[in-house]
Amino acid sequence: MTDDAERHAQKMAKKKAARDKIMSTKTGEKGLIVVHTGKGKGKSTAAFGMIFRCIAHGMPSAVVQFIKGGMSTGERDLILSRFTDLCQFHTMGEGFTWETQDKTRDTEMARAAWEKAKELIRDERNKMVLLDEINIAIRYDYVPVAEVVEFLATEKPAMTHVVLTGRNAHDDLIEIADLVTEMELVKHPFRSGVKAQQGVEF
Amino acid sequence: MTDDAERHAQKMAKKKAARDKIMSTKTGEKGLIVVHTGKGKGKSTAAFGMIFRCIAHGMPSAVVQFIKGGMSTGERDLILSRFTDLCQFHTMGEGFTWETQDKTRDTEMARAAWEKAKELIRDERNKMVLLDEINIAIRYDYVPVAEVVEFLATEKPAMTHVVLTGRNAHDDLIEIADLVTEMELVKHPFRSGVKAQQGVEF
Repeated sequence: MTDDAERHAQKMAKKKAARDKIMSTKTGEKGLIVVHTGKGKGKSTAAFGMIFRCIAHGMPSAVVQFIKGGMSTGERDLILSRFTDLCQFHTMGEGFTWETQDKTRDTEMARAAWEKAKELIRDERNKMVLLDEINIAIRYDYVPVAEVVEFLATEKPAMTHVVLTGRNAHDDLIEIADLVTEMELVKHPFRSGVKAQQGVEF
Repeated sequence: MTDDAERHAQKMAKKKAARDKIMSTKTGEKGLIVVHTGKGKGKSTAAFGMIFRCIAHGMPSAVVQFIKGGMSTGERDLILSRFTDLCQFHTMGEGFTWETQDKTRDTEMARAAWEKAKELIRDERNKMVLLDEINIAIRYDYVPVAEVVEFLATEKPAMTHVVLTGRNAHDDLIEIADLVTEMELVKHPFRSGVKAQQGVEF
């Protein structure tokens, strides 16, 4: 072995030992509260990726879309056409608030979505429940954050994962979450006049 | 209508008009160079979500995993068991560098993965090609960044989307990318002793 290769092997062996030691302390299992927020892309996409993971593992899951057509029609079509046995899909919202322009109706729809969400989370058969774009409903106070936090703290079954997405996640939600990722926008093709495209954005 | 409801409707109508005006200027279509980077979670998960979107739309796609078992075995199993007609899947790497501890072998594997990636990108039938964890191969200089940048700039078919993931994306890659998202770690359950769990992390 050359000196360089040997140094590399030694360095990596040390790194592996350190990593294995750390990982050996991570033995707990629990249902996580996961939040995807930030202005960047990938919040819903990564959440739907987790739903596909559950499908792959045969774990029953459920999705409530608080905002219809959160640009994820591809995933919805795929789940509805192939995987309804493993994933319940409920699209409760009617569109972004600036599309409906009707606050009373938006509030009613968000409330109905939240009631459905609670029902799905309480059902222990669901191993993961995705509340897509709920942060928007919370931000407009259609669903009070205190109600969401209290429900998750007191009624979520211990082993159920709940994933909440949308910009501007409320601090109180981040406080109780186990795993929070902020998707930060570094560069976006809209800036150079490119429209939303199939496969990338929906 | 109450005053409050009317104010809301007017405000949202304005917002919609402004948004529609902006969106009407976004008419271009092109194959994007998409980068998911940062220390947070969701880089590969969101990229695989885009692959599932392509599958949903019947768009042929391909995946090259530069690091084997980048914690996404669920997606791989699902694609290999159900969607090989629409998505080619190549796992070329053998593990993280600290697992293999062999620089020569890591370099050979990364080079082979990059050769496969070029072949898949050149094939115009593929509408999206995901190079999962390539940023790690670039960072260790197993694949020179200049070679990747030049290939994408000169040989990528105009309408093909290429998605590159992994921490520490090289500045030269960010420079030529159309869409860059940094997944930022806000909170991680490892910190409280919880291990990687099915459905969430793999």
